[in-house]
Amino acid sequence: MIATENTVIWTDFDKLGAVKELENAGKTDLVKEMSQNGAKRVKEYTVPMACGLDYNYAAKAVNDDILDKLQALADEAQLADKFSLLYNGDVINTGEKRLVLHQLTRGQLGNDVVADGVNKREFYVGVQKKVAEFAEKIHNGEITTEDGSRFTEVVQIGIGGSDLGPRAMYIALENWAKRNNRFKMKAYFISNVDPDDAAAVLGTVDCAHALFILVSKSGTTLETLTNESFVKDALKTRGLDPSKHMIAVTSETSPLAKSSDYLAAFFMDDYIGGRYSSTSAVGGAVLSLAFGPDVFADFLEGAAAEDRLATGSDIRKNPAMLDALIGVYERNILGYTATAVLPYSQALSRFPAHLQQADMESNGKSVNRFGNPVDYPTGPVIFGEPGTNGQHSFYQLLHQGTDIIPLQFIAFKENQCGQDVDIQGSTSQQKLIANVVAQIVAFACGKDDENRNKYFAGGRPSSLIIGEQLTPGSLGALLSHFENKIMFQGFIWNLNSFDQEGVQLGKVLAKQVLAKNYDGALKEYAGLFGM
Amino acid sequence: MIATENTVIWTDFDKLGAVKELENAGKTDLVKEMSQNGAKRVKEYTVPMACGLDYNYAAKAVNDDILDKLQALADEAQLADKFSLLYNGDVINTGEKRLVLHQLTRGQLGNDVVADGVNKREFYVGVQKKVAEFAEKIHNGEITTEDGSRFTEVVQIGIGGSDLGPRAMYIALENWAKRNNRFKMKAYFISNVDPDDAAAVLGTVDCAHALFILVSKSGTTLETLTNESFVKDALKTRGLDPSKHMIAVTSETSPLAKSSDYLAAFFMDDYIGGRYSSTSAVGGAVLSLAFGPDVFADFLEGAAAEDRLATGSDIRKNPAMLDALIGVYERNILGYTATAVLPYSQALSRFPAHLQQADMESNGKSVNRFGNPVDYPTGPVIFGEPGTNGQHSFYQLLHQGTDIIPLQFIAFKENQCGQDVDIQGSTSQQKLIANVVAQIVAFACGKDDENRNKYFAGGRPSSLIIGEQLTPGSLGALLSHFENKIMFQGFIWNLNSFDQEGVQLGKVLAKQVLAKNYDGALKEYAGLFGM
Repeated sequence: MIATENTVIWTDFDKLGAVKELENAGKTDLVKEMSQNGAKRVKEYTVPMACGLDYNYAAKAVNDDILDKLQALADEAQLADKFSLLYNGDVINTGEKRLVLHQLTRGQLGNDVVADGVNKREFYVGVQKKVAEFAEKIHNGEITTEDGSRFTEVVQIGIGGSDLGPRAMYIALENWAKRNNRFKMKAYFISNVDPDDAAAVLGTVDCAHALFILVSKSGTTLETLTNESFVKDALKTRGLDPSKHMIAVTSETSPLAKSSDYLAAFFMDDYIGGRYSSTSAVGGAVLSLAFGPDVFADFLEGAAAEDRLATGSDIRKNPAMLDALIGVYERNILGYTATAVLPYSQALSRFPAHLQQADMESNGKSVNRFGNPVDYPTGPVIFGEPGTNGQHSFYQLLHQGTDIIPLQFIAFKENQCGQDVDIQGSTSQQKLIANVVAQIVAFACGKDDENRNKYFAGGRPSSLIIGEQLTPGSLGALLSHFENKIMFQGFIWNLNSFDQEGVQLGKVLAKQVLAKNYDGALKEYAGLFGM
Repeated sequence: MIATENTVIWTDFDKLGAVKELENAGKTDLVKEMSQNGAKRVKEYTVPMACGLDYNYAAKAVNDDILDKLQALADEAQLADKFSLLYNGDVINTGEKRLVLHQLTRGQLGNDVVADGVNKREFYVGVQKKVAEFAEKIHNGEITTEDGSRFTEVVQIGIGGSDLGPRAMYIALENWAKRNNRFKMKAYFISNVDPDDAAAVLGTVDCAHALFILVSKSGTTLETLTNESFVKDALKTRGLDPSKHMIAVTSETSPLAKSSDYLAAFFMDDYIGGRYSSTSAVGGAVLSLAFGPDVFADFLEGAAAEDRLATGSDIRKNPAMLDALIGVYERNILGYTATAVLPYSQALSRFPAHLQQADMESNGKSVNRFGNPVDYPTGPVIFGEPGTNGQHSFYQLLHQGTDIIPLQFIAFKENQCGQDVDIQGSTSQQKLIANVVAQIVAFACGKDDENRNKYFAGGRPSSLIIGEQLTPGSLGALLSHFENKIMFQGFIWNLNSFDQEGVQLGKVLAKQVLAKNYDGALKEYAGLFGM
């Protein structure tokens, strides 16, 4: 039975009975649990994900009783029903009155979704097909530069969701692609309105053989249009015709859609939020050009497989839902204010920055989905850097600071490049793994010491996503996991996770500054800069 | 008069009378203050820094009364005296019983500091001179590769402080150097024990013309030695002699110091913590090679000038001390748990990651400098990304999330590359500035709206460091400002900011995993990875 608007009730978090139960439940002594029953917990507190990944939550401050109460919360908050509403095409983005269809870019989870007279799944698949055909023509030389030579590099011009996600995914797969003979074109990214960003990239790129992808859903993003002009000027200076070097990814109604300024235009729509657009043409164009359409298809398949796992209502079999619930437990019951994402994989170096956007832009809200203020903490601060680098940096605070920061580790059995070195009886990969394992246990169990400076209180919760290797498929699964985790947390907090009104005021005031339409502090600050 | 150990009293934060005064003081209504008196505050609440920078705190939730009470706190905590003890060579790092001398790498602030029978200023200057001579020989071709060709690239192998700071400084100056004809050699960095990190860099670098800098104070950092082996193997595979391609930056007592495996060795000592080592040979070697010794000297001079400003006891003239006090006020009186660093300069893209280490590793502690537990919050979470990128990402939470996150903006009147484009009546640089100005006011003043989803509560405090341009000098001043801010906060919280016992437990457990000397959770986790 498909959930309908009539069977689903949207309730504020603090009005849910299950929350009271959680507040009154006994806490888990994580140090004791992990020290005494650690092996058992590691074996039992794990949920399979797609593409060979597992979500292990042994080192989270939960026990069977708390898990039961989290299940009750999931049931009372109707998380599975709400997700069903979403993927069946309900207007989940209440603020902007839009459907939320990023899952549909990678698979059909429910009924056909028809909007604006179009079957949206067919639309997204159609765009993917067009992107794939175009990429193949670039790769096989059917489409060339003005002088008939091959395009060898691709440059994405976009900001926010048109930058962070695609950039993180590109970095995640670049070395995998090189190792597996899937590497087609080196990709670069221009995002910041700081002109030094574009200048530096253009100083590096071989413009004569570069294809630029202009990405803006509305076709009006000021940073992106400014950088487009910057690039066009640079191309003209080099005697190149910009319209022969540029494609657009935009919505069908955008001013860019039918412009003759571009070799081609590929469409997205209002039902794909920027931060959820890596699996749409926003990520599809650059990733298909860089690695070939097959790699992008594998990435989508991994995400789709993980999405299917997220449809279930049993939290012990639904890793995204479980992760979401544990996160809410940490945020609202235990009172922790931040979460660190710690991938033990250099390829995921920008994955935390992408999650920072995806999570903080989605759930950094103080009003519920009906626009009424809420009385409970919502989205936490998200930050992170790859391990082992972070170990030599901010881990000091994570281990011995006065606040507890929950941790999300990610690690793989195999590296991507297949090169390694044996030092002191172990490979680098083994050292990497030994470190992530050691950190989880150190954070959870701590260590007693008479010297309080060398004492570790422990009780610092973490979870581990473990996989065989970071591949297009497992990367897709990873992305989907976090997207769905964020969605479920938004449901639990009764937020609209799919708008971002908080970015508007700055835009309005920036325009006032540029128009010199200001007074007071705004004028005085502008004056400091001579504006 | 120089402070002495006898005139200085180390007191826990919660035992200071000035703290009670601050707790009892009336709060500032930032929305009202900035809306009504904003222009006046912007004019008055500013402190000159070195190299043309200014620290503007108009949008911080302080008023004259709170500033007076912060001054009283600074006086009672004897901040200027404690800094004086430090730069005059007292054993400030109580845990490791070491002096703290990173300021001495860039200037003489107090008396001569003699330790281990050596005048340490002369020692640091001597090393800088040797680094400069070596760099010049590389640049002018006196030292060449085996086949007599020039070295064209430099690769730093190090982790933590041997990576984050030098990398952030390199990125900060790369485009400035190119524009100003100071660019000598492209630099790369290998840090992570993940073998994919080294493999990727070695896949990019022209090894036959690359000079590798091995950086490890102890000469025993496992990640760094492992990556050294990785690099040596790669060089040998290419028929190159590693000893002709590698220099070391280490302590005189390290096993690397006199090895014939290196073209040269440059020394640091135990009085320079890793996270404070950018102005020592750790940063000096790579920056002098990349940009020339003169650029590095300008960088040091900027840092020294800012250090001198930090010696004063009047908080209204000491930007680092004032910044530190306001941060403590926000952390301990207002209860904010994180701080975002937001440079409106693409060149500072990794500066927040460096500050994340510098701050969180220094002050993420739960015991005071005598090893006794403290009962108050210490170092906050530090995170950040460059603007305007962040505006399209996590700013949603900063504007409308349920927690208030204090902000540190950094911006410059001029960009580095000198290329720009005029779109819709303004340049990119003007747009960049308009955005930072707009954000400060938006965060402080908010905006009323009947639609609560479009309502901004405001009252979100920020400060602004503003400069003419990011140059070697202003970068040095910026670095020094934050190093000294962290130091003063450590003094206020009565911490030892210069050890990092919190990183030890993970190392011990990782060794146990590699030796298969484990049981319980550790063994079970290792088993998940097949170890």
